[in-house]
Formats: sequence, C-alpha cells, structure tokens
Amino acid sequence: MEAMQQAGVEDHRAHAVTETVESLVKSLALRARMAARALARSETAARNHALAVMANTLLARSRELEAANARDMDAGAAGGLDDALLDRLLLTPARIEAMARGLRDLVALPDPVGAIDGLAYRPSGIQVGRMRVPLGVIGMIYESRPNVTADAAGLCLKSGNAVVLRGGSEAIHSNTAIAACIREALRDAGLPEDAVMLVETTDRAAVSALVQLAGLVDVIIPRGGRGLIERVIHDARVPVIRHLDGVCHVYIDDRADLDKAEAIAFNAKTHRYGVCNAMETLLLASAIAPAALARLVPRYRAAGVELRGCARTRDLHADVGVADEADWSAEYLAPILALRIVDDLEAAMAHIERYGSGHTDVIVTEDIGRARRFLREVDSSSVLLNASSRFADGFEYGLGAEIGISTDKLHVRGPVGLEGLTSSKWIVIGDGHVRG
Amino acid sequence: MEAMQQAGVEDHRAHAVTETVESLVKSLALRARMAARALARSETAARNHALAVMANTLLARSRELEAANARDMDAGAAGGLDDALLDRLLLTPARIEAMARGLRDLVALPDPVGAIDGLAYRPSGIQVGRMRVPLGVIGMIYESRPNVTADAAGLCLKSGNAVVLRGGSEAIHSNTAIAACIREALRDAGLPEDAVMLVETTDRAAVSALVQLAGLVDVIIPRGGRGLIERVIHDARVPVIRHLDGVCHVYIDDRADLDKAEAIAFNAKTHRYGVCNAMETLLLASAIAPAALARLVPRYRAAGVELRGCARTRDLHADVGVADEADWSAEYLAPILALRIVDDLEAAMAHIERYGSGHTDVIVTEDIGRARRFLREVDSSSVLLNASSRFADGFEYGLGAEIGISTDKLHVRGPVGLEGLTSSKWIVIGDGHVRG
Repeated sequence: MEAMQQAGVEDHRAHAVTETVESLVKSLALRARMAARALARSETAARNHALAVMANTLLARSRELEAANARDMDAGAAGGLDDALLDRLLLTPARIEAMARGLRDLVALPDPVGAIDGLAYRPSGIQVGRMRVPLGVIGMIYESRPNVTADAAGLCLKSGNAVVLRGGSEAIHSNTAIAACIREALRDAGLPEDAVMLVETTDRAAVSALVQLAGLVDVIIPRGGRGLIERVIHDARVPVIRHLDGVCHVYIDDRADLDKAEAIAFNAKTHRYGVCNAMETLLLASAIAPAALARLVPRYRAAGVELRGCARTRDLHADVGVADEADWSAEYLAPILALRIVDDLEAAMAHIERYGSGHTDVIVTEDIGRARRFLREVDSSSVLLNASSRFADGFEYGLGAEIGISTDKLHVRGPVGLEGLTSSKWIVIGDGHVRG
Repeated sequence: MEAMQQAGVEDHRAHAVTETVESLVKSLALRARMAARALARSETAARNHALAVMANTLLARSRELEAANARDMDAGAAGGLDDALLDRLLLTPARIEAMARGLRDLVALPDPVGAIDGLAYRPSGIQVGRMRVPLGVIGMIYESRPNVTADAAGLCLKSGNAVVLRGGSEAIHSNTAIAACIREALRDAGLPEDAVMLVETTDRAAVSALVQLAGLVDVIIPRGGRGLIERVIHDARVPVIRHLDGVCHVYIDDRADLDKAEAIAFNAKTHRYGVCNAMETLLLASAIAPAALARLVPRYRAAGVELRGCARTRDLHADVGVADEADWSAEYLAPILALRIVDDLEAAMAHIERYGSGHTDVIVTEDIGRARRFLREVDSSSVLLNASSRFADGFEYGLGAEIGISTDKLHVRGPVGLEGLTSSKWIVIGDGHVRG
C-alpha cells in the first residue's frame, strides 16, 4: 500500500515535470512566432547586417565559447563518449572561425524573401506571379556538433524565419554560449532576439513537446541518427523534412569508359566515409565487371576498404568477403563496400529500387539511351551521370549553404538551402479587374 | 454475463470488419503503387492517348452513367439529402460532357514529368539541374460531386501519378461507374488500369485506413467540408495537402479609386456565394468608408446580401445588422457580408492576421507604397491588388486545371495544378568528374 502511494507520488511528479517542459517549450515557440512576424517584414539589409554582427560576436567571444565547450568536453569524456563523438563536439578557434565565415557567406547570397517569379499577364488582364515568403517558425532538432547552432540560426535568419533550436544534451553549454552570442547580435542589429530561441533544458520530453506544436511551429528539421529522426517522425504533429539514410549506389554500365568508372567508383567510396552521399554498394554490369574489378579491387584494398561481394564477384575475386542480404540495405558510413554484379541496366535499376534509400545514385556509361533512362527512372533525390555521388551537396549544387538533405518527396528533395526554407504565395496585380 | 459475452462477440465482429477494410484498402494501394512505377516511366503520348480514350469512353457510356447516378439520386432523396446536395450529386448529359472536356483539356497541357529546369554548369565542371517527377501514389478523399472522380483521375494520370479515390458514400454508384470507364480506357490505351483505384466500400473506416498507409501512399488530398478535412488531418500518417476555410477579405484603402473599389467589392461578394474565394469580410479605411458604403450598401441590398457591421459601420448605416466576434472568423459561403471600418492599412492587416484563414486577401488602393506593403506582408496563399478575390483559381492563374486549393505553406500553396502533384529531383551530368 505504501509502495503504491509512493509510485503514485512519483507518477505525479513525472507528470508535473513533463507539464513544465511542455509549457516551457510552448512559450519559447510563442516568442519565436511573434518574432517571425517582424522578421518576415524586415528588410534584406537588416538581416544581412545581423548576420555580419553575429559573425563578429562569435569571434569576439571565442574564449568564452571555448570555455563553455570545455565543460561539455569534460562531461563527455567522463560520461564515456567515444573519440569520434568527442571530436564532433570539440570547438577549436578554427571551427569558431568557420562558423563566422559561414554566417558571412550567407550575407553574399541573394535574399529569397519577396522575390517574385514569373509575373505575367493572363488573358483576363490581371498579372499573376509567385512571391517567396518565409515558412514562419522552424523547429531544428540536432545532435552533437555545436556549429549547427550557428549554421541553422544563420540560414533561418537569412530566409526570414524564426527558429527554435534543440541541440544535443552533450553540447548544452556550447550551444547555450553560441545562442547567447547570436541573440545579442540580433539585439545589436535591431532585430528581435527571439528570432533565435534555444531550448536549454536537456529533458528529452522537450523534443516531443516541440514537434507537437502544430500552429506554432511550421516545420521540423531533424538532423542526427536514425533513432532521433524516427522518434521525431513518430511524435510529430508538425510537418517534418526528413533526412534518412543514404544507401547510395554507383552502377558501372558495360558501355562505361573504364577510366571514368574507376575514378568515380573510387572517389565515391573513399573521398569521405562518414557522409550520407558516400557510395555503399557498387553495381557492375557483368560484361565489364572483370576489367573494372581488376582495377578497383587492388585500389580499394590499398585504401583499407573492406569488400563484401555477391557470389559472382567472389567467382572473380575469391578473397573478397561474402555480402549477405543485409549488406544490400546497409549504410556503412565506414570503409566497407558491397559489390554486386548484375546482368544489365534493368537489373541495376531493380536493385536500386529494392534496396536503395532514394538518396543519391550514379550511372557510369557512354550510352545516351541508357543514361536517359537511368536519369528519368531512378527515383532518388539526386541522380548522377558520370560523376561521383559525393557531388550531391548543397554547396556543390550552388545553393550557397545547406541545412540538411531531404529524402522526402514533398516540398523539398535533396539538399535544402534557403529556398527550401521558404514557401511561395500567389500575387495578383489588377487595375480594378473583376470576374465576369 | 450473457450481455457481456454478447458485447464481446460484437466487439470481435467490429474488429474483424475493420481488419477487412484495412486489408482491402492496403491491397488497393499496393496495386496502385505497382502501377505508379510503370506510369512514372510512361511516355507523354501514352498518357495523353489514355486521357482522350477516357473522354470518349465516358461519352459512349453516358446512359450507363446516368442510370448509376439515378440510383444514387433515389437513395439520396429517400435518405433526406437537401436540394443543394442532390444538385451536386446529379449527373446530366451536360455534366458528363464537361467531364470529358476536362480530360481533353488536359491533353493540351505540357507534360510536367521529366521537365528539366535550370540545368547549368557549376565551377566544378558538372551540370546541375532539377527534373520534375511524379509524387507516386495520391490518395484523394472527397464528397458528393461525382465529377471529381474523373477530374482527379485525369490530373493524376497526366502528372504520372497513380491515384486511390475515395468518394462520398452518397455517390458510390456514380463513382463506381465512372471509375469503371476510366479503368477500361487505361486498359485500352495500354497503361495499367490499376493506376486508378476506387475504394468501393462505403465503410468510413476506409478513410482512416487510407490516410495511414505511409510508404504506400505519398500524399493525401482531401476535398470536402471542414469535418472531413479535420478527421483526415487527425488520423493521417501520410502528408496531407490541406484545403481549409476561405475567410477572404477585401480592404478598401482611403487612397483607393472608388469606382474600382465598388466594382471589386461587389464582384468579390456576389459573383458566386458558395466558393472559397468569395469575400466574407469587407474592411474599409475610415476616411473612405462613408463614400464607399454609400455606393455599396444599396447594391448589396438589391442583390439580397445580408449585411452585418461593426459599430462604426452602423453609425453610418443604422439599418445594417450587428456583427459580433464570431462574424469576423465566419466563412459564410452565403449572401451574408461582414463590414468593418478600420483606421488604416496597419489596422486592416492586423485584422486579417487575426481573423483571416490565410486563403485570399485583397487590397484596393492607388498608393504604391501601401500596395507594396500589403503584397509583401499579408501571409495568405493569394494576395491581390486591385482585383477581385474571385480570381484566386487555378484556371485564372493559368495552371490549366486544379485539383484543389492548398492552405498549407509546405510543398504547394494556393491553387494546386499539375506541378503541385510532382516533386523535383536533382540531376547531375558529368564526364568522369570526381570531388577533389
């Protein structure tokens, strides 16, 4: 009986804490919403000036940022974070300079807000066009890297949006210090500081609370591991721009140029391992597989890439490991590569459709008809011909900056830049026109 | 005890029925998904041919369609549907011809699928552009009007999408007959008939089942009353393109031309009453209100429009009814108009922000500075200057056809035409390019 009462009290307390977190997050979002109105109406110069002031403030406060980061690093080391995570968490003077540079680069980009597209006369005599407008309030949920705090705040500000930031608990001191600089800079530049709100509690209930604020938050952008993104999708009542796995393929067609094929397949795997646009499976047309593998297998070996092949691959190279069914859907993010020999283009596209994640897929071929089919028929956010999958990136595509890569089809697909953070409304200009 | 067992049995039966509906809807969506692949790869000419065959088939089967419709009309009359609903439900030879004409009009529109935008060289040497691709499978949920069956099927086919249609139970025989014609036409034209699937059960559980098929259905488009749309939003695990209320405003600025203001304010209210882009509230700057109302009040009266005004309006026209708080947010869809006198542009925009639904709002002014502010700052899917709100329409905007009007900000806003039913993927063309 006493135990039951005790449990009841604890339930009650847990409930009260959750309530508090929910109302805290809601009040942050409400303040961001108010700021979003002012921001949507702000002039280009005011937002650009604020970005420049932000960059200066981060540099001027470099020491404070490093001190705050040291607290996170100590806690992370004590808490057993591995070296890779600690490296992500670390703020160095160079990384602080990179954050500042990122903000300054945004100044130079054209302002998307208010840009009018395709204004044209209609037979009725009215002029009709579309004007880009901010989405309103962005909810940004991310892990580990504290630079995302500055990057996301900058992109949202440039595109006229307010943002509610929710970083990882392991970076809480770094994020708090960066957000303080940014809010101070907004104030100094004469814009509402509430345009950038940081959720300062590390309570996980804050994430669920944030993603349920339909009507206050316009879109959620999660960046992090699959676990985080799936939890967000599950709980969300607000639309989510998803960034799911990159199970990316390069298909070497039998009409490929071997030199190009070798360069692309090697670059796509080894240029960087831990990125979503790295190749995870290499598909080879059977007619070209012996020649292509003869060049590539030794190079991958020399680079320390573990190879896992299908039975046909292992017939050619007995020392290649065995790929099983799970390898075809694996996003290794590591020096591991799955190899599969297929009959032809049709079989390659069927493999990609079945096992791919719709992120980035490449064909290497000199045949125009096959290139045309692959580009049209492969349903991925980026489809490349005779180029490395590593090009699937907002900077390489000329977006100037990138807040993530969308694997969704609606609204925005692939790298998300400033345009992905805006909406288009219709504008109509008449001179007393009415419908007859 | 017997009662409890009885209840248990009924629960079990209800559960079994729901299970059956769920698996039925899932199997329809799976078939649509398979067809969507073929459709995405189909040639423009094949889809256009199918549209023409569909039109011919509907005309050739006119008698059968009318007979099926007569069954719905009889059931509707017996079930007590009111005259307005019965009129919506009715299929006449003229309405069947209009359906066929709508399908033929789609043939003439440019094919959005595969269209490439902005292909340009980047400093790295790669060419980058965006290609329009179908969304995949559209779930269309609608009420009463059987012509939506043909309209939606045509728009989805033209844009390379498969569609699962779920019409109102009152139109089940009409919808079934129309869908049978369409599927026959697809077969005749050599395209997969499963590109158009109709949910033939009238069980309401089918709607919930359809909107939860994340992964099988790419987007849900509901068209109908607020109740239907809210239920869909509540249950959905698939993204929804919402079409919510049109609480549309015309604001007559004190720098308006009185002739234009009179024409626009009269047309926006009286051109048609039951449409979402009809004006529901007229805002007048106080300096122009006496002159504008002196012209407009008698004209509205003569047209049979009931007027409900704020206190300042009633000071000028004592015979105008009283508008209370609820009137400012009302979507009358009827010959009723709310009138409010405001101090200036600022007050008008504040009213629209507070009470509007973000659908369509109009300013009448000759002042460029005020026009510029209204167009930029009013956050609605359509914002008009010196033109009637009735222009907010896919045909008037040149989309050629329209499947609905989105009040969402993400993906598509305002009238949804073929482009709104597509996504853009990135395409990259290189010649052996790798990242350095």
